[in-house]
This record gives sequence, C-alpha cells and structure tokens, in this order.
Amino acid sequence: MTTASLANVTVQTQANVYFDGKCVSHTVLLADGTRKSVGVILPSSLLFTTGAPETMELIAGRCRVRLKGRETWVEYQGGQSFDVPGDSAFDIETLDTLHYICHFG
Amino acid sequence: MTTASLANVTVQTQANVYFDGKCVSHTVLLADGTRKSVGVILPSSLLFTTGAPETMELIAGRCRVRLKGRETWVEYQGGQSFDVPGDSAFDIETLDTLHYICHFG
Repeated sequence: MTTASLANVTVQTQANVYFDGKCVSHTVLLADGTRKSVGVILPSSLLFTTGAPETMELIAGRCRVRLKGRETWVEYQGGQSFDVPGDSAFDIETLDTLHYICHFG
Repeated sequence: MTTASLANVTVQTQANVYFDGKCVSHTVLLADGTRKSVGVILPSSLLFTTGAPETMELIAGRCRVRLKGRETWVEYQGGQSFDVPGDSAFDIETLDTLHYICHFG
C-alpha cells in the first residue's frame, strides 16, 4: 500500500529540478524534523547518486533499476519500494512516469 | 517577499503532470481545508485554463503572461504574483524555470 498523502508537514515551495526537469521534487519536513521529498521522474534513463541511504517508495509508474555494482536490472512499479545504500548510485530507466516519495536515512 | 514554505499542511504524494511534464505540481491541503498547489513550469509556451480564480505566486523564475482577451504580454519574475479570473485562460511563456504556488479562489 502506498502513502497517498503526508500530513502535518512543511513543504518547501522552491522545487528541486534535476536533469533538465526530467526529475522534479519538493522537499517536505515532518514535525520531528525528518526530511523527505515527493517527486516525479519523467520517462528517461538517468543516473542518480546518493549521499544518505534512500528508500524510494513508488506511488505510481514503472521503472527498471540497477544499483551500483550490480549487473542485473530489477523492475518496480507503483506500490513497490527499493532501497539504495548511502554514498552510492543507481541507474534508473523510467518506463511510465514515476511518482515517488524519497525517504532518507 | 515570497512564501518559502507552507507549514502544517498535507501533501498529496501523487503529482499533477501537465503538458508532457512541462508543468509538474503537488496538491497541498491546509489545516482549514484550503487547497493550493506547489509546482514548476519548465521553459515552454503553454496555454492554461482556469476553473476557480487563481493567484500565481512566483517563488523563482521568469515568464511572460497574456490573459485571455488581452493583447498585451506582461513579464513577471520570482517575488511577483499575477491573478487569473475563473473560467478563463492564460498564455504563459516561461523564460527561466518557474517555481510557483497556485492559490485558488
């Protein structure tokens, strides 16, 4: 089951725009200070790098992901999540526009 | 002065994606039930239609706007706002990626 909404949060109104707009996200702060982002990745093939570890919770859409150091691609869709280690990277091929929540740490 | 953040809100995690991703926004609900959206418009020339009246508060970026029925284009940038009547439309040419809050009603 996906998280349809995040309640009692503060949204930063300036977005994060990556890869010429192929990825657009807004930063959200929870009451306890936890930072997340809600975003969209348009159909594309991109390489993301991570600082903190991330869990990408897919709200809708479909993609293939290959974590750094792995040979295999794994397909994910809305309703699923995948974890990425910190100080790492992943290739992502978005097949249908992704709507996601990025959970850090 | 622009609104850097919206506090005590609920964010819908599935985004609104318009014009093949040239415009991406997330719906935000305030504690009193008021609905707003926070979004981005990438460099483009688009025609938006309105249901409810809107105030577009520009957080960052630059655009030219022509309201329906007007002949003149007016340029706006981050820190400025413009109003659009309900059941109307506006042409918008985004020159530098726009970050905005759309206030309805």
